[in-house]
Amino acid sequence: MTVDTFSLPPLPNVLVEPAVQAALQEDLGRAGDITSQATIPESAQARVVIRAREPGRLAGLQAARAAFRLVDPSLKIAVQKQDGDALAPGDIVAAIEGPARAILTGERVALNFLGHLSGIASCTAAIVEAVAGHKARICCTRKTTPGLRAFEKHAVRAGGGVNHRFGLDDAVLIKDNHIAVAGGVREAVLAAKAHVGHMTKIECEVDTLAQLEEALGAGAEAILLDNMSPETLVKAVEINQGRAVLEASGRVNIDTAPAIAASGVDLISIGWITHSAPCLDLGLDFDSLTAA
Amino acid sequence: MTVDTFSLPPLPNVLVEPAVQAALQEDLGRAGDITSQATIPESAQARVVIRAREPGRLAGLQAARAAFRLVDPSLKIAVQKQDGDALAPGDIVAAIEGPARAILTGERVALNFLGHLSGIASCTAAIVEAVAGHKARICCTRKTTPGLRAFEKHAVRAGGGVNHRFGLDDAVLIKDNHIAVAGGVREAVLAAKAHVGHMTKIECEVDTLAQLEEALGAGAEAILLDNMSPETLVKAVEINQGRAVLEASGRVNIDTAPAIAASGVDLISIGWITHSAPCLDLGLDFDSLTAA
Amino acid sequence: MTVDTFSLPPLPNVLVEPAVQAALQEDLGRAGDITSQATIPESAQARVVIRAREPGRLAGLQAARAAFRLVDPSLKIAVQKQDGDALAPGDIVAAIEGPARAILTGERVALNFLGHLSGIASCTAAIVEAVAGHKARICCTRKTTPGLRAFEKHAVRAGGGVNHRFGLDDAVLIKDNHIAVAGGVREAVLAAKAHVGHMTKIECEVDTLAQLEEALGAGAEAILLDNMSPETLVKAVEINQGRAVLEASGRVNIDTAPAIAASGVDLISIGWITHSAPCLDLGLDFDSLTAA
Amino acid sequence: MTVDTFSLPPLPNVLVEPAVQAALQEDLGRAGDITSQATIPESAQARVVIRAREPGRLAGLQAARAAFRLVDPSLKIAVQKQDGDALAPGDIVAAIEGPARAILTGERVALNFLGHLSGIASCTAAIVEAVAGHKARICCTRKTTPGLRAFEKHAVRAGGGVNHRFGLDDAVLIKDNHIAVAGGVREAVLAAKAHVGHMTKIECEVDTLAQLEEALGAGAEAILLDNMSPETLVKAVEINQGRAVLEASGRVNIDTAPAIAASGVDLISIGWITHSAPCLDLGLDFDSLTAA
Amino acid sequence: MTVDTFSLPPLPNVLVEPAVQAALQEDLGRAGDITSQATIPESAQARVVIRAREPGRLAGLQAARAAFRLVDPSLKIAVQKQDGDALAPGDIVAAIEGPARAILTGERVALNFLGHLSGIASCTAAIVEAVAGHKARICCTRKTTPGLRAFEKHAVRAGGGVNHRFGLDDAVLIKDNHIAVAGGVREAVLAAKAHVGHMTKIECEVDTLAQLEEALGAGAEAILLDNMSPETLVKAVEINQGRAVLEASGRVNIDTAPAIAASGVDLISIGWITHSAPCLDLGLDFDSLTAA
Amino acid sequence: MTVDTFSLPPLPNVLVEPAVQAALQEDLGRAGDITSQATIPESAQARVVIRAREPGRLAGLQAARAAFRLVDPSLKIAVQKQDGDALAPGDIVAAIEGPARAILTGERVALNFLGHLSGIASCTAAIVEAVAGHKARICCTRKTTPGLRAFEKHAVRAGGGVNHRFGLDDAVLIKDNHIAVAGGVREAVLAAKAHVGHMTKIECEVDTLAQLEEALGAGAEAILLDNMSPETLVKAVEINQGRAVLEASGRVNIDTAPAIAASGVDLISIGWITHSAPCLDLGLDFDSLTAA
Repeated sequence: MTVDTFSLPPLPNVLVEPAVQAALQEDLGRAGDITSQATIPESAQARVVIRAREPGRLAGLQAARAAFRLVDPSLKIAVQKQDGDALAPGDIVAAIEGPARAILTGERVALNFLGHLSGIASCTAAIVEAVAGHKARICCTRKTTPGLRAFEKHAVRAGGGVNHRFGLDDAVLIKDNHIAVAGGVREAVLAAKAHVGHMTKIECEVDTLAQLEEALGAGAEAILLDNMSPETLVKAVEINQGRAVLEASGRVNIDTAPAIAASGVDLISIGWITHSAPCLDLGLDFDSLTAA
Repeated sequence: MTVDTFSLPPLPNVLVEPAVQAALQEDLGRAGDITSQATIPESAQARVVIRAREPGRLAGLQAARAAFRLVDPSLKIAVQKQDGDALAPGDIVAAIEGPARAILTGERVALNFLGHLSGIASCTAAIVEAVAGHKARICCTRKTTPGLRAFEKHAVRAGGGVNHRFGLDDAVLIKDNHIAVAGGVREAVLAAKAHVGHMTKIECEVDTLAQLEEALGAGAEAILLDNMSPETLVKAVEINQGRAVLEASGRVNIDTAPAIAASGVDLISIGWITHSAPCLDLGLDFDSLTAA
Repeated sequence: MTVDTFSLPPLPNVLVEPAVQAALQEDLGRAGDITSQATIPESAQARVVIRAREPGRLAGLQAARAAFRLVDPSLKIAVQKQDGDALAPGDIVAAIEGPARAILTGERVALNFLGHLSGIASCTAAIVEAVAGHKARICCTRKTTPGLRAFEKHAVRAGGGVNHRFGLDDAVLIKDNHIAVAGGVREAVLAAKAHVGHMTKIECEVDTLAQLEEALGAGAEAILLDNMSPETLVKAVEINQGRAVLEASGRVNIDTAPAIAASGVDLISIGWITHSAPCLDLGLDFDSLTAA
Repeated sequence: MTVDTFSLPPLPNVLVEPAVQAALQEDLGRAGDITSQATIPESAQARVVIRAREPGRLAGLQAARAAFRLVDPSLKIAVQKQDGDALAPGDIVAAIEGPARAILTGERVALNFLGHLSGIASCTAAIVEAVAGHKARICCTRKTTPGLRAFEKHAVRAGGGVNHRFGLDDAVLIKDNHIAVAGGVREAVLAAKAHVGHMTKIECEVDTLAQLEEALGAGAEAILLDNMSPETLVKAVEINQGRAVLEASGRVNIDTAPAIAASGVDLISIGWITHSAPCLDLGLDFDSLTAA
Repeated sequence: MTVDTFSLPPLPNVLVEPAVQAALQEDLGRAGDITSQATIPESAQARVVIRAREPGRLAGLQAARAAFRLVDPSLKIAVQKQDGDALAPGDIVAAIEGPARAILTGERVALNFLGHLSGIASCTAAIVEAVAGHKARICCTRKTTPGLRAFEKHAVRAGGGVNHRFGLDDAVLIKDNHIAVAGGVREAVLAAKAHVGHMTKIECEVDTLAQLEEALGAGAEAILLDNMSPETLVKAVEINQGRAVLEASGRVNIDTAPAIAASGVDLISIGWITHSAPCLDLGLDFDSLTAA
Repeated sequence: MTVDTFSLPPLPNVLVEPAVQAALQEDLGRAGDITSQATIPESAQARVVIRAREPGRLAGLQAARAAFRLVDPSLKIAVQKQDGDALAPGDIVAAIEGPARAILTGERVALNFLGHLSGIASCTAAIVEAVAGHKARICCTRKTTPGLRAFEKHAVRAGGGVNHRFGLDDAVLIKDNHIAVAGGVREAVLAAKAHVGHMTKIECEVDTLAQLEEALGAGAEAILLDNMSPETLVKAVEINQGRAVLEASGRVNIDTAPAIAASGVDLISIGWITHSAPCLDLGLDFDSLTAA
């Protein structure tokens, strides 16, 4: 059994469908697609394909399928790519066949999910590629678009990245203000260990190598090395000796990432891949469209 | 009475609060901010300011306020900027005072709204400035993030842009596929006029000047000139003679916008300002933080 | 292609199902149909028809079907009329076949939607017929039943009427108080034009012909002529010269409508067709009912 | 202690607020009251009164108040009438004071609730008055508007009527089809008694006096006498001898009600008072409106 | 027709599905079943059975089925027992077949519903058996788990018990504080009779036989005899002479129930069967589990 | 700064209020507390206290407060105990003052939360006390009541216990079926490590000491020792040498817990404390109740 085949499991339906339903309600408003109602007969049938118009990495297929299915369960959707697949311009992602009105009605919501999430996957993939050959993995943050965190975390995985915590509740991340109130790195880490259960990991942000040693001594399981130079990161890796997971952070871009990765850290976390990734250009083309 | 004072009315509370509540539920999960619970005493008080870290245009303040208020109604929020205001690095947007745990708990949701929406406002403002001196206004599309359309449309207004339709239901926009099935531009426009009520505007996308004349003849109230060169746009403006609102569209960027605007069109619509605007960098700084 | 075939497209499912689900939850409460549970064996099968008991116009079929389907997806529903069809007493609207308990459980919710919405369609149709031969179309208002606006707007269309705006957000309608604060008709219309996007229509209510001229001069696209006599309306039509859509309003009934329509106005808007239309009498009759 | 003071308790807030919130979302859509935003400065203050424009009975005040409060909690609402009060034309129901925009934004939703529910209260009151002097009370049915049952039942009480069951789950009402499957009136009543708990009442519809005797013999606690003439109703009252509550039903109107009531039945149930009551005309008048 | 076949009708789907959907969202969180995603290939198929591990009475099957169906509609569920059936250790309740990941993902929610509700059914059945031979039926209260009242009331019926009122709104239950304010038993009962409709039953709690006579005299339809000894209950039954339903209450357990039942009361109500019933032990066993 | 003061932070409001609102809607139904409406004048004021009727540990105060506040924001609630406090019979938990009707309306929902959650806290506290002196902490499972997991996890903490994972998504727990498909303990643990991010802990269930060594070798961070005897647990502790967190599990009760704890394991997890804890008896007593 190879582990690889499991790399990108789908999101739960009970999470995807309500979000897509809400997006359709947002777009269809109080009267639906009045343009298609006016110009496309109810009996018109169409076959369309969703195509990449630029290179990138696919994510969001599950939401796109749900958009068409919730508009009209009779639409037939044949998927030709999967989330996580690389896309070249012109690549066909999926073909949809059925009532033309329904296809046009679901088009924008489907593409809005696909474009936004594939944009995140594509940015992630670009950074992942930039650090290829190093052990460092690319990791996201909680800087996500309100309402779409689970989708965006999934898109990061589709791009080859890994996920940081999903919310304030599933892991501890001690930052400077926590340290200030708690009275120091050591006090903050110990307070966290005393507070949380055994299934909750504890990470501590540090600004200096002295803080790093303090955090390691107190038993932090992961350390966020904030805004350190590659040289300092190398020293941090040496000090750590494999005790904690080391995460480098701080305005990383595609140019600076390789040097950071070369330091030997385990993770590089980047807010930009979720909060500022441009949309990937995908479009819906009509193969056939018949009025009756 | 000057009209300007009304330029950016707030979104309805009945729309803002549920979205912010959902974003908080997404971030707080099943146990809340366990890091602050572990390291910050319940009695600790703080005063923080939200500051711009780069120049831009503010949007999203209403959601940010709601985030803090929904976490803890006792937090005092003193706003120093308004949506639509220009921001310079270091500018203070708002100050928040009260229980430190509550401030830290609401911080990320507040900043996620502010950063995302101010990013949209800032991109819009940049393009608006690029076409200053021309009559053309900058307009958004339906290429918005699922679940946040009303917020993003508002952010476009905060950036000095104007809004296109809000959904498939509040205006007609006839595109190539509608024309193909309806049997022509004229047929599609007439079908739309026959279908919709008198409070619904009808716009038609055209690819050629011949189609433009056909759409004008059929009574379209607005024309989307798709992917036309500035020269062709100039001709379109001449043909139009003020009959319809002319909207230029098609991969506009900050370099190409001025020439397009110079053609004399009324509007330039840009998907990018909503679907690909990078987050504006705003941060929360602690002025004071006392454990008791 | 004839436009007529598109005249009454269905409402979006994402809008219909939640409303019908809520209505079922309201009627079934915490234990469901306890009378049928007590007296009808689970295995009993029935075939029923929904019949008109008085003449009218049908609307609400989509909600009625959803009511039965949501109670029991195994019910077979054979529709024999469509929304917008004229009904004579005794006409069969639909036949439903399947478990008797499920039919009885869904009956009242289905009939409540059908009766209420067909009542609106029927009143609309009566007024539409009263003004037949004139160009004036019958139009609804925002005086709708809370929670059912989209359904009631659809029912107006089923009765041959047209829709006014769907809410406060999709079109501008300037009324006397807006004019009073803005400083006059002209100021109010110009303020609106400066405020809204190009896909939003602007209508202005006027009480006098002087105000009409002012509104036309300011560029209002539609004018609501409030409580004017037929003679004044004739003058308004002459003044207008086709520049704006003219809507007559003010306590119109089936006796006064023809004279108003004869004035040459484009629209007659009537609150009564949505807020005070009596229910159309439709009933559910059992064709067969077998205990096993 | 007099019982009268309790006659019309308010509906629970947890039931009223979500319905009013949904109605506001329906009316404010994705951008709110764009007309007021364009023409009324944010600082403008107003004082308005809600006035009856025709005689009737008030209901719906709780929802109207919630509408204004949910739009803007700073609005001051001074109530001058209560649900259940008689209204003469010109009577002031309530005065509202505060930001003019907020008042105009909440106006339609508040009036839609008030007009619809006062219409039901007024029709109920008219029938109640028509049978004054008889012991018969006027009773509603489940023929209510989807989504508004609790509000409409309350409005019936405001009109002096009483409520039948609230749903399919809180009482048994055996009708002809139940009787047909169960094998007779007696069998159906006994089946119901065997099925339900001791806090659930059992009513049985009967078409003949023979069925009445059968139902009484089986222990039905209430009998619905369907479509019987006043003479037959008199006989039914004699047969009953006070054993069960007797409810007369079947297309009762204001002319036929007195004779039915004179028969001595306990209740007269009427679907029309909820499903077909015309809206009561109430309006919002501005006392003062100042731009700053 | 035998009444028995109707004894346990299912809950309405419109009530069951939202509760199960919410429970799945609670368990699957923001990323779903990450353990199964990591260790079970998407293609793995399994066949499992749900088995009783101790004797008891089944309830909750409808929710358990919904849990698996909502996780994956392709799962095949073969039910071998019904709610209300007695279970012996080892009894198979249902078999589920399909994708192994989906089965493991739905397992806990399904078992949590089944165990909790079967626990209630089993406790109810034990008390029902303890009073077998007497006419007294076992009845529940409003002391239920927040959010699960309809499910728990159903479980009581599955255990052979009957239901008291479902909420504060569907029947009157006058307690000591109501009596104190109303000015006495008689005043309280009369106030209730004046207030409620004819389909609402009125029960009155009494502490003494004098109060019992007062309540009967005022026309209470049911009497809650609070904390009376079996001897006093016998006297209450004699006084009552079948006029009202008599319900004994007050810390009844399996040892004291028979003596209470022997008094001749109609009902014995017990809060414990819903609020303190231990979970019934049911487990999910794999029959087969294949990686491909 | 002592850590102890943080031991029981409140649940987020955005999580508590919706659950309490739903519970109130469940209890108040479509007409509210009709008994109090009938018998208690609107003006009646009361002062009540909530009292423990048996010894135990308090939990659920936050929900109880929300219940009263959501019924009537004017109620004054003075809390005298906190979640986590020990209760003796007669101890006053809180006093509530205000409109008598509102207090009676909120009473049952408030007590249902308090009783259920205090029951869980009390059972947890009993087991915690039974193992006092050992390092083993008492831990809950995912065997919680559907819809109340966050509340029940909080109640476990109130009883002195610690929390296991909150759902399927926030930590990995590898069980026998996962091991079977993955091909062994080692393969399963490695697959999990490859799949999840660095903030997600991995626990593995083992049945034998050989499996324990395999799991430790593969890097499992916690080990669930399933159904092992105290003697075997001692050996497991020796083998572990502090490498992983050791959790003993399997039908632990108050008698067997001390011996298990004596083995030196870190945790003892018990499903019973959440799924089968009997309700703690708390009641609401009237201090004063005045009709006006």
